[in-house]
Amino acid sequence: MNDRFAHGGNVYDGGAPFGGWHDFSANINPLGLAPSVKDDIVSHVGDIIHYPDTTAAELRAAISSHYGIAADSIVLGNGAAELFYVLFHVMRPRRVLIPMPSFSEYERAALSAEAEIDWFTMSEENQFALDVDELIHIIETKNIDAVIFGNPNNPTGRLVKKGDVEKIAKVAAEYETLVIVDESFIDFRNDADEYTARELVSSHENLIVVESMTKFYAIPGLRLGFAIAPSVIGARMDEGKDPWNVNLLAQHAGVAALADTAYQEQARDVVAREKDALYEMLGALDGIEPFEPSVNFILLRLDKKLWGTSEKLCVKMKGKGFLIRDCANYVGLDERFVRVAVKTREENEALVDALKSIAQGNDKTIS
Amino acid sequence: MNDRFAHGGNVYDGGAPFGGWHDFSANINPLGLAPSVKDDIVSHVGDIIHYPDTTAAELRAAISSHYGIAADSIVLGNGAAELFYVLFHVMRPRRVLIPMPSFSEYERAALSAEAEIDWFTMSEENQFALDVDELIHIIETKNIDAVIFGNPNNPTGRLVKKGDVEKIAKVAAEYETLVIVDESFIDFRNDADEYTARELVSSHENLIVVESMTKFYAIPGLRLGFAIAPSVIGARMDEGKDPWNVNLLAQHAGVAALADTAYQEQARDVVAREKDALYEMLGALDGIEPFEPSVNFILLRLDKKLWGTSEKLCVKMKGKGFLIRDCANYVGLDERFVRVAVKTREENEALVDALKSIAQGNDKTIS
Repeated sequence: MNDRFAHGGNVYDGGAPFGGWHDFSANINPLGLAPSVKDDIVSHVGDIIHYPDTTAAELRAAISSHYGIAADSIVLGNGAAELFYVLFHVMRPRRVLIPMPSFSEYERAALSAEAEIDWFTMSEENQFALDVDELIHIIETKNIDAVIFGNPNNPTGRLVKKGDVEKIAKVAAEYETLVIVDESFIDFRNDADEYTARELVSSHENLIVVESMTKFYAIPGLRLGFAIAPSVIGARMDEGKDPWNVNLLAQHAGVAALADTAYQEQARDVVAREKDALYEMLGALDGIEPFEPSVNFILLRLDKKLWGTSEKLCVKMKGKGFLIRDCANYVGLDERFVRVAVKTREENEALVDALKSIAQGNDKTIS
Repeated sequence: MNDRFAHGGNVYDGGAPFGGWHDFSANINPLGLAPSVKDDIVSHVGDIIHYPDTTAAELRAAISSHYGIAADSIVLGNGAAELFYVLFHVMRPRRVLIPMPSFSEYERAALSAEAEIDWFTMSEENQFALDVDELIHIIETKNIDAVIFGNPNNPTGRLVKKGDVEKIAKVAAEYETLVIVDESFIDFRNDADEYTARELVSSHENLIVVESMTKFYAIPGLRLGFAIAPSVIGARMDEGKDPWNVNLLAQHAGVAALADTAYQEQARDVVAREKDALYEMLGALDGIEPFEPSVNFILLRLDKKLWGTSEKLCVKMKGKGFLIRDCANYVGLDERFVRVAVKTREENEALVDALKSIAQGNDKTIS
């Protein structure tokens, strides 16, 4: 993997401080692993001598019931990312439209299926909001086979209302364009119903919604995601992957996680509160402009005169034990941008303190 | 998944007896999960709040050292099966030659990448041995893009000598035909060096060897496999899947498993001894002809007059708490064939006793 597709969350670099990195580069639920989920995984380790249930019957039923979607519309993935690859491999769209900046695996997966990429710029001046009318215009005029975007979008945090997703899907259907919506972070919101397109899939044969369970339930190391897909596309996705792709422990973890509503509510409350608090603390720093967060991460624009490049800041923060995400390799961003996760109040304050101490050092260098 | 691609190892059916099924339908190491591996997994459950290492540096080094292969020739998979799909999706062979009977995922993966399948019959009279000269003749005459076979082959147990694999690879190279060898069960043999094509990959640009770690280390529920591929093909495979496909616990389990040489030696000894003992016990039953096993499973041919169809026998065995593999859905086999795993002496004897009691019941029906 080259730098172009490098991601955050790499805690495996040498030189970690005693006690490990403060990892603000991966957007994982700040509550960490729910004890109920951890206990459930540990209690099932002995069962890995068996193959996973290829029907994932229990997990499928739990997802169906939790989200109110038909069990047979669910395609289970070894993480959400696997599903982008499977989808592009079986659907083989020739031309894929990707609003940028966005999660680079959309492009990487499309390229691996030999698609051409049409970039669609979301304007920095407009806080990187998705211009729905412009997107629709491109679908109408440019012979696009598939469009894929995040809702909320990573790394910008911008949301698209459910009504707008439906508008896009309806026009796209006329042009036989697939619409793939990545809702990997939507579970972090108390008002997810205003945005999620899950319930639209049953009435739109060109709409696929992809959900991750790794971020909200803090199990990225175990991998778990799912797609909600129209039956024809879902069947092709199932045919395009091996039947054991979701490991046995992930299946158990998913069931346990969906049952733990107390954890879910607490997580949403903590993130709702702490994202605003961190946004305010970061906004108070000279030369840092945070973009308003919608979930558990915040995109920051740096004044390079005060902070240097994103890469330099990341190196300095690493020297203090903090991993943050250099966003220079996102198409549509540059070396003025970094992204930080929203964690607990104490950790967020430590992050801001580390930034402050770098700012003071910068001042000394200048004076 | 339709019946055509149904597999063994489905312990999730209702009606399991107290204490669970005697599962002879999946070919898993009879020693079960090594305590060293189990402990290692349990100790790392808390780490799943982090993404897996996308380079899988520790596991890659351990595999490289254990098998004596270059670390950068290894492509890691979420089980071996995932790698067949990734390989076919990125290489897109139009015409795939598959000796039959064999593991049905070869066909399913090739079909999902829109390949045409050329079947190649291995003769029952010849104990389903692979006729290497005939295979080569087809490669020379039929415009084949890829050939895939198991060594040892599942469900027949037949082996191909390393020299013959090399002979196939050399001729195939002249015709730009990929040769994919599935060595998922080779670790069970003490004389694996006489068969494995692992070390041939570095000198054959059209040869890919796929290895499973789920069978020999009894971790099918966790998923772990790898391919050894020429650099151009390996790079395309890595590009054709997401970078987090091997979960964090599987990476740790793999390292721990490769370090436990005592377990490996014991497993090979037990399987070498018990496969022969079970082969003998089964051969002593009227109307059952076992094919000589090479690893931890045995293909059986039933005299239908004495035993009825494979499906009927499976149902009867299930009634006694035993799952065995109905092989009627393998291309090239029919309702005379079932497959059983080799387990511990005690379990194998229980299997034979169950068969005997069915035979007695059959006698009573006849008399």
